[in-house]
This record gives sequence, structure tokens and C-alpha cells, in this order.
Amino acid sequence: MKFLRYGPRGSEKPGILDDAGNIRDLSGITSDIAGDVLSDLGRFANLDSHSLPIVEGDPRIGACVARTGKFMCIGLNYADHAAESGLDVPSEPVLFMKATSAICGPNDPIVIPRGSEKTDWEVELGVVIGKSAKYVTEEDALDHVAGYCVINDVSERAYQTEREGQWTKGKSCDNFGQTGPWLVTPDEVGDPQNLSMWLEVNGERVQNGSTTTMVYGVAHLIAYLSNFMTLEPGDIISTGTPPGVGLGFKPPRYLKAGDEVELGIQGLGQQKQLCVSDE
Amino acid sequence: MKFLRYGPRGSEKPGILDDAGNIRDLSGITSDIAGDVLSDLGRFANLDSHSLPIVEGDPRIGACVARTGKFMCIGLNYADHAAESGLDVPSEPVLFMKATSAICGPNDPIVIPRGSEKTDWEVELGVVIGKSAKYVTEEDALDHVAGYCVINDVSERAYQTEREGQWTKGKSCDNFGQTGPWLVTPDEVGDPQNLSMWLEVNGERVQNGSTTTMVYGVAHLIAYLSNFMTLEPGDIISTGTPPGVGLGFKPPRYLKAGDEVELGIQGLGQQKQLCVSDE
Repeated sequence: MKFLRYGPRGSEKPGILDDAGNIRDLSGITSDIAGDVLSDLGRFANLDSHSLPIVEGDPRIGACVARTGKFMCIGLNYADHAAESGLDVPSEPVLFMKATSAICGPNDPIVIPRGSEKTDWEVELGVVIGKSAKYVTEEDALDHVAGYCVINDVSERAYQTEREGQWTKGKSCDNFGQTGPWLVTPDEVGDPQNLSMWLEVNGERVQNGSTTTMVYGVAHLIAYLSNFMTLEPGDIISTGTPPGVGLGFKPPRYLKAGDEVELGIQGLGQQKQLCVSDE
Repeated sequence: MKFLRYGPRGSEKPGILDDAGNIRDLSGITSDIAGDVLSDLGRFANLDSHSLPIVEGDPRIGACVARTGKFMCIGLNYADHAAESGLDVPSEPVLFMKATSAICGPNDPIVIPRGSEKTDWEVELGVVIGKSAKYVTEEDALDHVAGYCVINDVSERAYQTEREGQWTKGKSCDNFGQTGPWLVTPDEVGDPQNLSMWLEVNGERVQNGSTTTMVYGVAHLIAYLSNFMTLEPGDIISTGTPPGVGLGFKPPRYLKAGDEVELGIQGLGQQKQLCVSDE
């Protein structure tokens, strides 16, 4: 199933996408796609989507999950991307955090911070936690997944690496975390390590990869992170980006106001963002 | 005023501490110490605390603020602590994030993660945001503060620096963020840059500092961070630790199960934690 959230920012309603591509209103059944609801999305499987109201018009789509407590990101998790960044593949997963205030809808603009000259793109497979996970094994790890989604891990490279230590500063700006359009349940996704993914800037394909080349796969990441902290329903793991980010071009290429970014992952839908100045 | 939250974890109620040291139940007046409530704590100033029910017994004290979206920490923000860590004072504030799932009550145990050998302590002044802040000036910054509190920024040094990049892994373990006991409003705190602070391990004083030696003060930090992202009500900035952490001893000293940690900041109360194994 494909879950989504639609409506104005901060007051989104839950919905599902039916087989015909219509948004169906789920707000009569559940309050939001968040928290404990994520632990049992299977209970909606028997729902007759035609019994739910169709949402008319073309509403804004919000982030596909609400009340995310942790927005965890894995650095350098594709060997080719590590190479283009001039860095070695890490011997174990690199974790950093994005501020949850960066999370926004899949088609919300990329807001280029004041003074930024190095705003960059990163298509990533997002994993949304459904059930709490602490000290879980790799074998059991995928039982804790509510679903998968597309994430644009927008990154300001100067803030990330030229402004005194720790990447989080360049990862946490407002609207630096487009999430969605859909939260797609694992049964529909199949093998998360076999999904093609792409990103285009002004119609030019710059990222063209597959989760097959991920260094540390989803099950490993969940088990690994759960050794450090409890993963909670609604937490997001953004699993790293394949090659083709702006930083990797020679010379580097960065986003400017007016640019259009489109990205997608097989089975998880697409995003489209206009870049705007924060003036 | 001193606000607090009391009761079992996950179902704390709001309260205030009256002049006689009694906890008074605030749950008839407000639902929690969180969100928009933080933007106008002054409205409680005219409250006759004697009109509120006294909370009997000795309840657990929870974190003094709920629904924190961002748990931001400033690294190496005391010159002496940078020196004991063998690092230079940074040319601008170093930001890293702790997972919000690490937040717990001031007297909740320090849970030493499985296999950890380098769990360390850090007394810090916590700043709780009351009103949203984006691109604010240093002059206006303190208008965005709801109050101040004590934080123990518990840190696993091996996870922080020996397990592949980025500090967040060693900062985010469960119960690595004791917060409280009280959220003390700015009028009662006075100058946040003139507060003595201390920490003891098994009765031995190991940290003994003052916010006077902070490199980047509270107003500067708020203004600085607001250039990168919107600070939201309930967000916490933990402003760094003075010298005396375990890592700085020669040889280093770390916490083990059974150790007792006590810490406090002038006017903001004290914390006391037992160290326990996560087995």
C-alpha cells in the first residue's frame, strides 16, 4: 500500500493512493501516518479503498510520515559516491543527523539559505521505522520497517565541511529534507536492495544508481543503529546517495534559484522541486 | 519561575516548584511544558501557586520540557575543555545533534550501552527555545529563550570518535541526555553567562566551572544557529561543557555500573544519576 499525507503544511491529513492513482482520505480511519499507527500498517490491507472519499483537486503533498523523532542519515554508503567525494568507504556505517525541522513535502521548494553558494542534491532511499528496535539482529531487522520512501538529502557543502566540524550544520537547513510522496509498505517494495534511483537537474540526469550498490544494506543499518539507540516508530533512516552529486562534478555544480530538481526511486514515486532563495 | 514535569516516563504532568519547594500540579491549567506553551511562560507569573494542588510524595521528575524537536549541542565551547580534549578552540561554533530519544529525567539512570568502555559525563547549560527563531540578531536572540536547565551530555568516547566519523553516534544512546530538574525562566536566572556549574563522580568533584568561560555565549549561539535553520519552541541548545570530563584525565576515567554522578548549575537545580549496565 501507498500511504501519504496531503494538505497545507502543519495540518496534513492521512490518505492512501488507490490503484487508479486517486488519493483517498484516510482521516476517518486514523488521525495521522505517525507513531503507533506505523507499527501495524497491515491492518489497512483489508480496507476497500473505494469506500473512502476521493480527495478532489490537486492538493499539496506533505512528508509521508509525521512526528519523526530522529532523521538519521548514513554517509558515504555507496562506494562510487565515496570515491567522487574523495573519501574511503567507511569500515562501518557513518551516522549523522539532519534536523527534523528540515523535513518537508516531496514537491516543496528547495530553499537556498541566505549566502549559500554550495547547495547540493542527494537522492536517497528512506526507511521509516514502524516498531521500536533496540539491539535487534540483522535477521529480525526488517520486521521493524513500516515502509520506504524517496528522500532528497539536500546538503550545503560549505556548511557541511568548511564551517568547523560535524556535517549536521550543512544538512539541517529548512526544506533540506523532501520526504515522500508515498510511504510504501515492504510487501509492495520487495527487495529494498534492488531499486533503481535517479535525479535530474533542469532535465539533465545527474544521478543514476541502484540500491544494489549500497555498501551497508537496510537490514544491516537497522541492526547496527539499534546497538547505539532505540529506533522508534516514525524515525527515518536515509541510507546514503549514489554518485552524481554536484560536489562530484569537475568543477562542482551547485543549485541556484530557478533550478528544477526531479528525483525518484523505483516503486516509490517521484519528487519535483523548484529552487528558491531565502530572501 | 521553575517549571517541571513529574510522573512516570511518557506520561509526565506539568508542574511548578513553589517558593517552599513543593511541586504544584499545573495540569489543570496547561497540558504540558511544550510547544506554544513555551512562547508565553510569563502568563503563569500572576498565578497564585497556593491555588494549585500540592503533589504529594516523591514522584519521579521527568525532562523539564517535552516534544523537543532538535537537541542541538555545541562542541568545544569552553577553552579549557578544548585544551583537555587536545583540540583547538573552534573559529565558529561546532554543532552536533543528540537524538531526542536520549532525553530523560534528571535523576534517571545513566545506562551504559552494551560493550561500552568509555561512557563519560558533561555538565552543560541547556537553553530551551520558547519562540521560533530564524535569522535573528544577537541583540534579539534572548527574546527567543523560554528558560534554562541543567543537562548531562553523556558521551561514549569510543562511539564518538573511534567508530567512523561524526560525533552523534557517541552522543545519542538512550538515557544520554538528563534534562532538568527545572526549566527556569530567564527573569529568575539573570545573566546566563555568570552561572557556576559542577559535577561529582562518587562524591569527588571533577568538573568545577562557570558559564563565564564559555567561548560563544547563549545569545551568539541562538543567532548563529538561526542562520542555518529555524529554531522551534521546545528545541534545546546544550551549550558545551567546562573542563573535567573523564576523557581529560590522565589516564582517562570512565563510568561503570554502580557509579553515582551528581551535577548542578547555580539557580537551576541538581541532578543525581546511578550508572547501570544495559544488560
